[in-house]
Amino acid sequence: MTLSALLFIGSHAQAQTDPLPSWNDGPTKQGIVEFVRATTTQGAPTFVPEPERIATFDQDGTLWVSHPMYTQVMYVLESVPALVKAKPQLAKVRPFSTVLDILKGDRAAIAKLTLPDLEKLAAATLTGMPVETFQAEAKKWLAEAKDPRWKKPYTELTYLPMQELLKYLRANGYKTYIVTGGGQDFVRVYSEAVYGIPPEQVIGTAFGTTYGYAKDGKPFLTKAPKLLLNDNNAGKPEGIHLMIGRRPVVAAGNSTGDRQMLEYTNAGGGARLPMILLHDDAKREYAYGPAQGLPDTKVGTFTQALYDQAQKQGWTVISMKNDWKRIFAFDQ
Amino acid sequence: MTLSALLFIGSHAQAQTDPLPSWNDGPTKQGIVEFVRATTTQGAPTFVPEPERIATFDQDGTLWVSHPMYTQVMYVLESVPALVKAKPQLAKVRPFSTVLDILKGDRAAIAKLTLPDLEKLAAATLTGMPVETFQAEAKKWLAEAKDPRWKKPYTELTYLPMQELLKYLRANGYKTYIVTGGGQDFVRVYSEAVYGIPPEQVIGTAFGTTYGYAKDGKPFLTKAPKLLLNDNNAGKPEGIHLMIGRRPVVAAGNSTGDRQMLEYTNAGGGARLPMILLHDDAKREYAYGPAQGLPDTKVGTFTQALYDQAQKQGWTVISMKNDWKRIFAFDQ
Repeated sequence: MTLSALLFIGSHAQAQTDPLPSWNDGPTKQGIVEFVRATTTQGAPTFVPEPERIATFDQDGTLWVSHPMYTQVMYVLESVPALVKAKPQLAKVRPFSTVLDILKGDRAAIAKLTLPDLEKLAAATLTGMPVETFQAEAKKWLAEAKDPRWKKPYTELTYLPMQELLKYLRANGYKTYIVTGGGQDFVRVYSEAVYGIPPEQVIGTAFGTTYGYAKDGKPFLTKAPKLLLNDNNAGKPEGIHLMIGRRPVVAAGNSTGDRQMLEYTNAGGGARLPMILLHDDAKREYAYGPAQGLPDTKVGTFTQALYDQAQKQGWTVISMKNDWKRIFAFDQ
Repeated sequence: MTLSALLFIGSHAQAQTDPLPSWNDGPTKQGIVEFVRATTTQGAPTFVPEPERIATFDQDGTLWVSHPMYTQVMYVLESVPALVKAKPQLAKVRPFSTVLDILKGDRAAIAKLTLPDLEKLAAATLTGMPVETFQAEAKKWLAEAKDPRWKKPYTELTYLPMQELLKYLRANGYKTYIVTGGGQDFVRVYSEAVYGIPPEQVIGTAFGTTYGYAKDGKPFLTKAPKLLLNDNNAGKPEGIHLMIGRRPVVAAGNSTGDRQMLEYTNAGGGARLPMILLHDDAKREYAYGPAQGLPDTKVGTFTQALYDQAQKQGWTVISMKNDWKRIFAFDQ
């Protein structure tokens, strides 16, 4: 057998056994692999019984790109023209008129949108319709909409290393959840196809529904503008208790909105793996913090205080630049 | 081989293949078995893909005994003495004083408790403590408390035919959920041990939690008196959408509080199996309706209107008296 043949077999065998091929070798990858082994080796003092293997992942900025703007905000904005078409009088009313300007190319107008504006837009585009209607509309948008930088559907902008990590955890008996500040109903539309995570394992900011009957007597649920769970900050551990009822063993996030989920995970007894992703790769994705002197941002803020807390409490800080060999499945 | 040996082999083989041995042969049992076959046979027009096989079961009166009073109400009442011990001034304050009278043997005093009384008692015994403290207290009570009629722990008063049905559905790729008007946190304490249903598959009336920090900086969740989901009536389908995000294919209940869940299940396209249990067995369990001329009750009311709706919409009405061979695992 020639040397090159031996090398081929060697790299082939490694490719088969390496569960995280898009991660660079180093302490981060090694720590994850060792953690999984430690919690799944029967008899080890760090063993976690399978029913307790709960892993919770933030979505925006943790599993997929969230810059320059959250995907669901793009959905809300791009749903406005249809809304205006149905109710033409809205065309001259703020914030709908502002959104029409943004969509016509005045990107700077996005800064004019206040939080109450966004709430009004969200209520108008995400509530008031039967749940099935919303699901069909979101699905249609996701199939057509494209991210302006990569010119690809948003659902292709998931991080390959995180996709590998989700699969690796599931292969080791972990139940993977999305715990997102985004809308629960929105993420549930694509979570199964995109992440292999079924709707019942998606926890997000949730509005209520109202049960009623159609004219033919058939019952249906209408999305109501009643906030049940603001799944950000303290709302994340509260939402986890509401929807899962167990403390996670593994958790991953990327911003201040994930702090409480990571703390809560970390504070459980026994082995725990809190992870936080630092966007420090301006070239392949985006760079923002302001931790570690990275540019400041309002979308997925990762403060220096959060970085310091992660270091102090021994959370795993994932550097996109250093720890990830590939970022997207479409990368070469 | 003797005839008796043949018979023995025959009955043994049947016991092995019959997934519902505590059910009497007849249209109810046959209908369930045929439904499961129809929804799990690849290629059948009624086939349901595995991720969509959601089965939701009410608990009180559907999976276990709820007469003469809901088990959780007994927990609330029997938690009052410890409360009074910690705050002696409560001993002379209603409704706590009324509860002390009830527990001293004045069972008639239970009628004096109004709904606001029960809400006050629930708030005092079910909220205000860390979630782990509540879980430990409920677990302790469940290990010691006994039902007055059977003198057995409440957790042994589950219906064997329903336990078989849960297992049968799971063996056929169904994901089984409890959807209870009772407290979500209460049922989650024992659901895994008693029904093989993990906490994340228990949906119930849910109160919020509040994230905070102990003196040593360790984060924890406190049960808060803030109602998030009243999981009764229309709250059942609303809760199912919130927690699962899919419409059930199979659902079971026993009272007016389950009507909307059963309607909603039934209204989905394709094969659906809504079931409602009629408590018509005064001898082996209890008889109440008032449907079909059975005695009226405030605990688990099954009206004639609900019975008529079940017949009209083709729900499966399970007669405890006629359809169940055995009721409890401890029955001979």
